[in-house]
Amino acid sequence: MSAGTFGPGAAGRARSVRVVDVIRRKRDGGELTRDEINYLVSAYTTGAIPDYQISAWLMAVVLKGMTDAELAALTEAMLHSGQVLDFSDIPGPKVDKHSTGGVGDKTSLVLAPIVAAAGLAVPMISGRGLGHTGGTLDKLESIPGFNVNLSLDDFRRVLRECGCGLIGQTAEIAPADKKLYALRDVTGTVESPYLICASIMSKKLAEGLDALVLDVKTGSGAFMKKEQDAVYLAELMVETGRRMGKRMMALITDMNQPLGREVGNANEVAECIDVLKGNGPDDLRELSLVLAGCMFYLGRRAASLSEGKSLAEEMIRSGAALEKFRRIVQLQGGDAMVVDDPARLPRPRHSVQIASPSAGFVSAIMCEQVGTACVVLGGGREKKEDAIDPAVGITIHKKLLDPVAEREPLCTVHYNSDARLEEARRLLLSAYTIAPQPPAEKPPLVHRVIGE
Amino acid sequence: MSAGTFGPGAAGRARSVRVVDVIRRKRDGGELTRDEINYLVSAYTTGAIPDYQISAWLMAVVLKGMTDAELAALTEAMLHSGQVLDFSDIPGPKVDKHSTGGVGDKTSLVLAPIVAAAGLAVPMISGRGLGHTGGTLDKLESIPGFNVNLSLDDFRRVLRECGCGLIGQTAEIAPADKKLYALRDVTGTVESPYLICASIMSKKLAEGLDALVLDVKTGSGAFMKKEQDAVYLAELMVETGRRMGKRMMALITDMNQPLGREVGNANEVAECIDVLKGNGPDDLRELSLVLAGCMFYLGRRAASLSEGKSLAEEMIRSGAALEKFRRIVQLQGGDAMVVDDPARLPRPRHSVQIASPSAGFVSAIMCEQVGTACVVLGGGREKKEDAIDPAVGITIHKKLLDPVAEREPLCTVHYNSDARLEEARRLLLSAYTIAPQPPAEKPPLVHRVIGE
Repeated sequence: MSAGTFGPGAAGRARSVRVVDVIRRKRDGGELTRDEINYLVSAYTTGAIPDYQISAWLMAVVLKGMTDAELAALTEAMLHSGQVLDFSDIPGPKVDKHSTGGVGDKTSLVLAPIVAAAGLAVPMISGRGLGHTGGTLDKLESIPGFNVNLSLDDFRRVLRECGCGLIGQTAEIAPADKKLYALRDVTGTVESPYLICASIMSKKLAEGLDALVLDVKTGSGAFMKKEQDAVYLAELMVETGRRMGKRMMALITDMNQPLGREVGNANEVAECIDVLKGNGPDDLRELSLVLAGCMFYLGRRAASLSEGKSLAEEMIRSGAALEKFRRIVQLQGGDAMVVDDPARLPRPRHSVQIASPSAGFVSAIMCEQVGTACVVLGGGREKKEDAIDPAVGITIHKKLLDPVAEREPLCTVHYNSDARLEEARRLLLSAYTIAPQPPAEKPPLVHRVIGE
Repeated sequence: MSAGTFGPGAAGRARSVRVVDVIRRKRDGGELTRDEINYLVSAYTTGAIPDYQISAWLMAVVLKGMTDAELAALTEAMLHSGQVLDFSDIPGPKVDKHSTGGVGDKTSLVLAPIVAAAGLAVPMISGRGLGHTGGTLDKLESIPGFNVNLSLDDFRRVLRECGCGLIGQTAEIAPADKKLYALRDVTGTVESPYLICASIMSKKLAEGLDALVLDVKTGSGAFMKKEQDAVYLAELMVETGRRMGKRMMALITDMNQPLGREVGNANEVAECIDVLKGNGPDDLRELSLVLAGCMFYLGRRAASLSEGKSLAEEMIRSGAALEKFRRIVQLQGGDAMVVDDPARLPRPRHSVQIASPSAGFVSAIMCEQVGTACVVLGGGREKKEDAIDPAVGITIHKKLLDPVAEREPLCTVHYNSDARLEEARRLLLSAYTIAPQPPAEKPPLVHRVIGE
């Protein structure tokens, strides 16, 4: 086995440093230098350092952590492993939002048009569903014709034309993250706030942003079930972004039940259109307005969060946000008539209600199970190569604290094949806890605000 | 990337287990089952699990440790990755000693003939020098013609004929250890008492032993500088051996100065012959007798350690041990006349004394530097492929507590080339601390006895 070795660098370091010594230092809880981290990432990306050394280093990072300076260096190294977009020719601040993922978490589709309608640029590079959570790209693709695979040139053109574009990851963006993530996935090194932070931030900051709002989910449907874990990750991301000169905020938001009433793909798009028309469920509308308010504030379009939120409300009331959404769909090749006629979206052949086995109050929802039920129906992927059925999903009738009569529907399942309907039904039924008394209080929509 | 997956095992386990889940469990401080550890080791040895998964697991083991049951399972899996020798056809208990390595640590060459002379079988598979420490094989090879590379068949023949054989590692013995060690070496996962224990014990127990005495060195010339680390490793090894049905003891012995007066190869062999003739330095003779006593006790040849030590003394006094040594050299192809005429061993062309810069008492010796000085002279290897010069080395004149006059020789350097003589001289001079007063006490030769 041969070990990667640092040659004398641009700075003319006299002594070459062995990768194994860097791994040992991290193993023993020491701090690595910016040069060392840069070398690990760049040499791994080109193949000069083998997988087996990086996986040992990743495990040491999982168990020993990183300092803020190390984390910023890692994020920057991963960011600069690929193309960093530069939208300085497009006027106005560039802002975006990133969510750590949830069930029914569809705010991107509402936020992007609201914020672009008020004159900020939103160059949104999104992901697909992961595990039990949905993905923005999968939702957008339920709009007939909508193309999320724009080239970076076309992305720039769409962004210039309407202030907003929604695309998927490209090979040019942060290739180090792609390679590292594949390795982490098979070496038990996914679950580290440091590595999660670097992965998220390296991709998001490749968008050439001025400001970024983080929606860090916590609760039964989030990856971080415990609020303290969500807070820790949020603080890491805010600090890392600031060290790279970005205006940053993070909201710790509730994922103890699905956001809104729709879980799926086409049905979630329809729900977003409702919100853009001034309707839709309270929680989805409220969270979208708060997040848009943060983006306005960080993008210097509003002097305070509340002024930002008012501006977001105005963008909906005036119809400007809905028009912006229509324009985005058009520019990205989608059927813009879905805006006026959501029935043009894919529709399921069958629906069936899940009845409550008892009377009482909804006291808990194991929200991850709701997401998994949607995956089981075909609305998400169990294997990377699975195709998504955009029409299937779940409509939530009963949310936390709602009173429910025996046999009253808790939710409705929309499906095309009954092959795994029973499994989905079982997951949904057991996800609900019905208690004789309502719980003392509903979790707040926004648990905490971090930064700015 | 594809991850190794457990198929249903012989026990007909219904659910297959993914390697990544096993890595994650260890990462989170959990305990792995015997089946899981067996699978990791055997599938890694055959190449079914890639390096990058094992290196992540190794780092998790370094940082999270192992239970006694896990460690025994790992040791057994590594042991059974290759051939386990069976000497049940040779009468009498099979016993051996293993040392964790030191400077001037040459007891194997004294012990093996003493113990064999009293009728026990000593199937000794030894190593080469590692870092600043010497190796039994390198020392033996300084005897002209001595062959340490016997086939296992020839080893068995020698053992049957004289009760003792001294050979090197073969490809048949614990191949998993060879592959794992190469990976540990480049991934910063060498320094773990668990992994060190499994590596040592899997190789030693492949000798088909009934009992094993461990000489765990501590002090400035040992790998474990701190006594508590040596004790921890010793306890792990004793427990692991016992779980595998072996009689075990460990001695924590002092390595704050070279053992005996000779450091090198040919000069160490000559010193061992001296001891077998009833002469030689006190500390080397004493430790050899104590270790032999332990081997007699564990091998049920003596009822107590002191009775064992007396038997060892008798084997020297009677000349039986010296005769046994002569016989081993003959049977392994070496020039047995070195026993009577040690001048037949390789001799250095030059010698030079290192003079004390001041008068006083030897209050400390940085013993690792003495070993490194020997390596620098060519008596050890800096790279695996380096050749050893058997003639070079160091004779220690002043040991701990010895009074010394200004300009009096501390030691003598034996060398063939002066290319790196200055470096060796510098290492040796700075290794000695001369103080105006003697230190309060000399470290004991045996710090602690563990087991039995």
